[in-house]
Amino acid sequence: MNHEGWVQLKLEELSKSLGFRYTPWEEIKDRLTRLRSCMENKGVEALLVVQKMDCYYLSGTAQDCLLFVPLEGKPLLMVRREVERARVESPLEEVIRIKSTRELPSLINNHYGRLPKTMGLELDILPVGDYFRYKDLFPGTRLMDASPIIREIRNIKSPFEIDLMRVAGEIGRKVYQEGREILKEGMTEIEFGGLLEAAAKIYGHEGLLRVRSFNYEAYTWHVLSGYSGGIVSQSDSPMGGLGLSPAFPVGASLKVMRAHEPILVDFGTCYHGYQADETRMFSIGEMGEKFIDAYKVCREIQDAVLEETRPGVDCEAIFLKTLRLAEKLGYSDSYLGPPGLQTHFIGHGIGLELNEFPFLAKGQSYNLEEGMTFAVEPKIVFPGEGSVGLENTVVVTQDGYEILTPLEQDIFQV
Amino acid sequence: MNHEGWVQLKLEELSKSLGFRYTPWEEIKDRLTRLRSCMENKGVEALLVVQKMDCYYLSGTAQDCLLFVPLEGKPLLMVRREVERARVESPLEEVIRIKSTRELPSLINNHYGRLPKTMGLELDILPVGDYFRYKDLFPGTRLMDASPIIREIRNIKSPFEIDLMRVAGEIGRKVYQEGREILKEGMTEIEFGGLLEAAAKIYGHEGLLRVRSFNYEAYTWHVLSGYSGGIVSQSDSPMGGLGLSPAFPVGASLKVMRAHEPILVDFGTCYHGYQADETRMFSIGEMGEKFIDAYKVCREIQDAVLEETRPGVDCEAIFLKTLRLAEKLGYSDSYLGPPGLQTHFIGHGIGLELNEFPFLAKGQSYNLEEGMTFAVEPKIVFPGEGSVGLENTVVVTQDGYEILTPLEQDIFQV
Repeated sequence: MNHEGWVQLKLEELSKSLGFRYTPWEEIKDRLTRLRSCMENKGVEALLVVQKMDCYYLSGTAQDCLLFVPLEGKPLLMVRREVERARVESPLEEVIRIKSTRELPSLINNHYGRLPKTMGLELDILPVGDYFRYKDLFPGTRLMDASPIIREIRNIKSPFEIDLMRVAGEIGRKVYQEGREILKEGMTEIEFGGLLEAAAKIYGHEGLLRVRSFNYEAYTWHVLSGYSGGIVSQSDSPMGGLGLSPAFPVGASLKVMRAHEPILVDFGTCYHGYQADETRMFSIGEMGEKFIDAYKVCREIQDAVLEETRPGVDCEAIFLKTLRLAEKLGYSDSYLGPPGLQTHFIGHGIGLELNEFPFLAKGQSYNLEEGMTFAVEPKIVFPGEGSVGLENTVVVTQDGYEILTPLEQDIFQV
Repeated sequence: MNHEGWVQLKLEELSKSLGFRYTPWEEIKDRLTRLRSCMENKGVEALLVVQKMDCYYLSGTAQDCLLFVPLEGKPLLMVRREVERARVESPLEEVIRIKSTRELPSLINNHYGRLPKTMGLELDILPVGDYFRYKDLFPGTRLMDASPIIREIRNIKSPFEIDLMRVAGEIGRKVYQEGREILKEGMTEIEFGGLLEAAAKIYGHEGLLRVRSFNYEAYTWHVLSGYSGGIVSQSDSPMGGLGLSPAFPVGASLKVMRAHEPILVDFGTCYHGYQADETRMFSIGEMGEKFIDAYKVCREIQDAVLEETRPGVDCEAIFLKTLRLAEKLGYSDSYLGPPGLQTHFIGHGIGLELNEFPFLAKGQSYNLEEGMTFAVEPKIVFPGEGSVGLENTVVVTQDGYEILTPLEQDIFQV
């Protein structure tokens, strides 16, 4: 049988029988409408969407493709590999094969009747080499940065998206509960992390977490015990951990976990590309009082954030409120990291990527809106000793919030 | 205790007790010498190394940093996070903190006495937005693409690097052997993949595989059984598999593995950043004769590649030889993918990234050299039915090759 015929006949049925949820046309249509309104405001005639998650968001497929979206007229999805599969996955009408980017101008010209005068691409993430090639291919077109437009429309989640995040949160809930059975004294951090990940994959967790960034790598095995929880590393996180080597100096290490140590598990789950981020504390026997007290403070800070979580509240103001609270409670030197190394956010937007809008952070003065989703993560770090933290993912509702990671918040003591 | 003091006192000792191997100064010195000779040939006065694995290669640390390398004078490592840790990890003498890229010109000026007239950055991978910021910061400096220089020196591995790849291969060997005990009928592909990964992490496998690319994501759970092995997807691979959703349409799926199906396991292992790539076939009971025969052909093609593997042999010629052999054996329609979707390489360079030089591929006419490392991976695909394949990572030696993934090549039948 040839591949094309097989995909046309069987792929949709088999995929759906294994739980694939394709993005419906109504969903894509709504996203395109909001995108175009934003494009019109910014004076962009067309977009050439190049980044994988942006393409997935606007087309429903994560095949290797480029998406041309003019202000008026149909979008054109050009697929390098694999086009028949993209036709099954995407509800867009115009899905064609492209062998090389050299064909782009003629394909766009055929479809759109001309080349656009201005065209937006995601310059926050597109490599320079590719950009120069596009400049050569479109000498009469002004190339602009489309990433602010796309990030703006992606920051409000639809019920369809929120539902996928709820499933991710549900996977996380099961995995943390199973963690109680998995954790044993004498196990290394990475063994525990690997087994949690394996447990999550059984439920459809996709393994890779995504960050919109050059150089920043996300991962699911952020398991830090005792002193390793007190170590800061390259990541923009209050604690980085030791990691496995100088090449991967973050997250779980080969350190053996001991009784009474605080064991911080920061585990993101990904379902259909949508992520839920979550942190809980584990311990083998009771952890030291210092850590129990600090964890109570994390809960108090989280509750203070949730108290303010509703449309119309300023993101920076929420962050600053937590700084004042940490200070009042006597944790200003350990809240969000050791002195000089403290991070400057208490929440980060989350969805297809771990660093979406909104940021509940210093310098981020704008209002929460209904449909925004973010992870709130108060953490407290004691160098040489350990760290504690709590994290949940929430969606802003009409008059408050819903927690998408509904799991008990007590310490998971085994 | 403060973080700085703790890191200075304890980090090296604790890390080494957990198996960390720091890159020795002699190793870095040799890399810098080769780099500078290449810079001189290309007329570049200085490099500003921005990509994480390039920085790791040239400095020994993967902290969040930028590395300035002038043709003459000491390199300057500027670390955003975390500088004390970078000082432990890197043998470079000049390691300083940088808070913002805005400080770059003054830091370089202080160190080097002037700003360079030409400066190379990795434009193959640096985002456009960052590039424009660098242009603004260095208005009198001509920015050039340094990636060809860095990729060229990285393509010859030192004994130190080869030894790390050997350890990665050794982890892979243990994991494949344990796979026999893990694999059970009725398990899903992703469950098997997750458990293999968990097993590898116990030995220090770092979980993330790295590719020098925009949009291309590597992963370790490429477990494809029966029909899912016959599905092509977005990746530049003969078979992509079904994956877990339209957002991650590659690799293992929730498909249940059945007796007599060919089960292809393509599992890359990463140790201290260095990767070994490996593929073996598993089956529950005997797999169908068609697949057993095709697997024999994969072995024959691999052996034909190895027969030519020594310094001085042309890479493209090796690829073309395998095409002729596949045709002679009656597999021209299934070798490296289904018709119209066949990939055009039989081997890819490997090291810190999965797509290094050399490529044993169409259009890649240059010679193998001693110290090059690559993965050779003959694969045969039958749409709707399944696929088979074999993969090993090798290093080119003075007069031949050494296999870095020394594991039996028979089908792992359970």
